[in-house]
Amino acid sequence: MAMSAQPSAVGRVRVAHEGAIATVTLDHPGRLNALTVQMWRELAQVFSMLSADTSLRCVVLRGAGGNFAAGADIREFPNERADLDGVMRYHLQVIAPALEAVGRCQHPVVAWIEGVCVGGGLEIASQCDLRIAGQSARFGVPINRLGFPMAPDEVRGLLALVGRARTLEILLEGRVFDAAEALAKGLLTRVIPDDELGAEVARTARRLIRNAPLAARLNKRIVTRLCAAPHELTQAELHSFFSYAESRDHRHGVQAFLAGEEPVFTGD
Amino acid sequence: MAMSAQPSAVGRVRVAHEGAIATVTLDHPGRLNALTVQMWRELAQVFSMLSADTSLRCVVLRGAGGNFAAGADIREFPNERADLDGVMRYHLQVIAPALEAVGRCQHPVVAWIEGVCVGGGLEIASQCDLRIAGQSARFGVPINRLGFPMAPDEVRGLLALVGRARTLEILLEGRVFDAAEALAKGLLTRVIPDDELGAEVARTARRLIRNAPLAARLNKRIVTRLCAAPHELTQAELHSFFSYAESRDHRHGVQAFLAGEEPVFTGD
Amino acid sequence: MAMSAQPSAVGRVRVAHEGAIATVTLDHPGRLNALTVQMWRELAQVFSMLSADTSLRCVVLRGAGGNFAAGADIREFPNERADLDGVMRYHLQVIAPALEAVGRCQHPVVAWIEGVCVGGGLEIASQCDLRIAGQSARFGVPINRLGFPMAPDEVRGLLALVGRARTLEILLEGRVFDAAEALAKGLLTRVIPDDELGAEVARTARRLIRNAPLAARLNKRIVTRLCAAPHELTQAELHSFFSYAESRDHRHGVQAFLAGEEPVFTGD
Repeated sequence: MAMSAQPSAVGRVRVAHEGAIATVTLDHPGRLNALTVQMWRELAQVFSMLSADTSLRCVVLRGAGGNFAAGADIREFPNERADLDGVMRYHLQVIAPALEAVGRCQHPVVAWIEGVCVGGGLEIASQCDLRIAGQSARFGVPINRLGFPMAPDEVRGLLALVGRARTLEILLEGRVFDAAEALAKGLLTRVIPDDELGAEVARTARRLIRNAPLAARLNKRIVTRLCAAPHELTQAELHSFFSYAESRDHRHGVQAFLAGEEPVFTGD
Repeated sequence: MAMSAQPSAVGRVRVAHEGAIATVTLDHPGRLNALTVQMWRELAQVFSMLSADTSLRCVVLRGAGGNFAAGADIREFPNERADLDGVMRYHLQVIAPALEAVGRCQHPVVAWIEGVCVGGGLEIASQCDLRIAGQSARFGVPINRLGFPMAPDEVRGLLALVGRARTLEILLEGRVFDAAEALAKGLLTRVIPDDELGAEVARTARRLIRNAPLAARLNKRIVTRLCAAPHELTQAELHSFFSYAESRDHRHGVQAFLAGEEPVFTGD
Repeated sequence: MAMSAQPSAVGRVRVAHEGAIATVTLDHPGRLNALTVQMWRELAQVFSMLSADTSLRCVVLRGAGGNFAAGADIREFPNERADLDGVMRYHLQVIAPALEAVGRCQHPVVAWIEGVCVGGGLEIASQCDLRIAGQSARFGVPINRLGFPMAPDEVRGLLALVGRARTLEILLEGRVFDAAEALAKGLLTRVIPDDELGAEVARTARRLIRNAPLAARLNKRIVTRLCAAPHELTQAELHSFFSYAESRDHRHGVQAFLAGEEPVFTGD
C-alpha cells in the first residue's frame, strides 16, 4: 500500500491513514459530494484496497465540507443513463460494485454522517457497519421525484437495515427526515450532538481497533452469510425491472430536475 | 371502470373516487366492521379492480364509523369454519386471497386507522404500504382466546412488519395495545392526533399521487420480490397445521366467545 | 415427569413446578451463573423434558442471585475449547443443542431478566418467546475482547430479534448496554421497574396459561417455519469458520481474560 497519512491523489475519494484506522472522504465541492461515475469507481477501488490491507483494523467513511453525500450526480444522467443499456450499466456495473466493495470490506466500517445523507449517500451509509450521525443530519431517498425506482442491489442495503415496511415507506413517500426519525426507523447506530460527532467517531474507531481483527472479520462474514438472499434475480427479471429507462416519465423526471422544474408524471 | 365519486353498490366494501385517489371503506355497522365471508370476497374483488385501474395513483383503506376493523366476523364461524375442510377453505380461499389482493395492489395503499384495528383488521392493515393511525387506535391479535393460531399466510404480513420476536409476542400474549406501542413495535408508519388524522391521510395521498406511478409500482414489486419467502409450505404442512380445527379447544373457544363466556382450554 | 414443586436435583439448572408453570433457574453461585459444559447439557435436557410435559402451559427461565447469566464459563475454555476439535465440539455439540432445546420448547417461554445478561446469557434469552427485564439489567456480547467471533447457530438468535445491522453493531462494538437501549434495539419485550419485575413475570405467566395451548404451540411452530434459514451452512463452511480456534489471538484472548489482563491482539 502506497497510502500515507496525507490525502492520496486518487481524486474525489480521498484516503488518509492514522495507524490502523483509514479515513475515506467523499469530496465533491459545491455538489454536496454527489457521486460521479468516476467517484463510484474510485470508491470501489479504494475499499477493495483497504479491505486487503492487513495493517488496518477500522475504516471511517465521511464526506467533506459538512455533508455525507447527496447521492449520485444527476448532471451526468443525460449522458450516463440515457437509455436502457446505459441505465443497466450505471446501476449494475457502476453503483452496485461500489456498494458491494464497502459492504464486503473485511474491517469494521464506521459511517461519520453530517448534513445531507440522501439517495446514493444513504445507500453507501447502509453498507457500513456502524452509522454515527450528527443530530442535524438529514436522510431520505427522494428519487420518486426523478421518475425512477431504486435498483434491486441498492434496495437490499435498506432492507437489511429497516425491513420491508420502512423500506417501502422511504421509497414511496420520498420524504427527507431528520436524524431522530432515522434512528427510530433503524437506519442509524446512534445520534450525537453535532459538536461532539467527530470525537465520538474517533472514540468508536479507537475502541474497534483494540478488538481481535479475526473475530471482527468472521463476525462480518457469518452475519452476511446468514442473511444471504434466498434467490438472486435472473437476467430477465433485471431487464424487465430496468425497462422503466425507456418510459416518458423517467426521461421527464431527470429533465425537470436538471431544469429546476416541478415534474408532471403522466404514467407513460 | 364504472366507479364514480359516489359510493359503489358492491355492499359493505364501498369505493369512492376523487381524481387519482380511490378510498375503500369497510362498513359493517354495529359490528366494528368485522369482515364477513362476503366482505373478504368483496375486498379481494375491489382491490383487484383498483390495482388494474391505471387512472389511479393511490388507494386509501379505512373503516366506517370510527373503527378500522375488528377482524373476521366470528358469528359466521359455526357455519363457515365448522370442520377441517371449512377452516382450510376459510383461511386459504377466503382470507388469503383478500390479503394478497391488498398486498399486490400496484398503487401505493394507505391505511387510515381509527379505533379498533385487531385480528383480521390488523392483518389487512399489514398488507398496506403506509399505516397512519390516530393516537387512540387500538391494536392486537387476541385470537388465542378463541383457541386457534394465526394462519400461515396471515402470519407473513406481521412478520414482514415486525419480525419474529414481536410477531410471537403479539400472538402468544394476545394483548390489545395502544398506538404508541404499535408504533414502537414497527406496526405503524406514524401516529397522528385523532382530530388531525383525516387531514394527514389526505396530505399523504396528495403527495403520493405527484410521484411517478411507474417508480412506485416497481418499488413495490422489487421489495416484494427481494422479501419473497424462501420456501412455500407444502400441502401436507398446511393440512397438519389446520388440523387444530378438529380439536375440542378450537370448538370450545369459538362457542365460549359467541356465548360471551370465559373459555376454559384443556389442551385437547 | 418426576419433578415436583421442590427444586429438582439435576444440579445447577434447577426446575420448580407450580401448576401449569415450570420455572427453570440457572444457578452458579459466585460466577454470575456462567454456564459450564455440564450446565449447558442440563439446560438442553431440562427443556427437552419440559417441552414434552403436556401438563405445562408456560416455562419461566431465570437466573439465581439477582443475575440472569454471564455467558459461558470461561475458566473451562483451556480444557474444553483448547483446539479446533474442541472449539467445534463446544459450540456445535454443547451450546447449539441447549439453545435449540430452549427455542424449540412447545410451551411459551418467558425470560425473567435481572442483572447481567451477556454473551451466552443473551443467547439463551434470545431463544425465549418473551423477554421481560428489570430496568437495571445489562446486556451485550463482549466476546471480541476474548478474540473470537460468535458461532453461527448463536448468531441466528440475535439476527431473529434485531436484524443484521444491530447484530453486527453488538458483535463489533462489544459494548455492555442498559435495558432501555436493549428495548430500543428490539432485544426485549418490555422493561419493568426492578421491584415490580417478579410480579410482572408472574402476571404474564398466569395470562399465558389461560390461552389455548394448541394455539400457542402452532403459533410458535409456524413462525419458526416461516423464518427458517434459506440455506444451512455446509460442513466445509463450519470448518472454515471455526479455524480461528488455532489463531494466536484466540489463545491469547482467553489467556489474558483468565489472567485479568488487557489483551493485545496482533491479527495472527
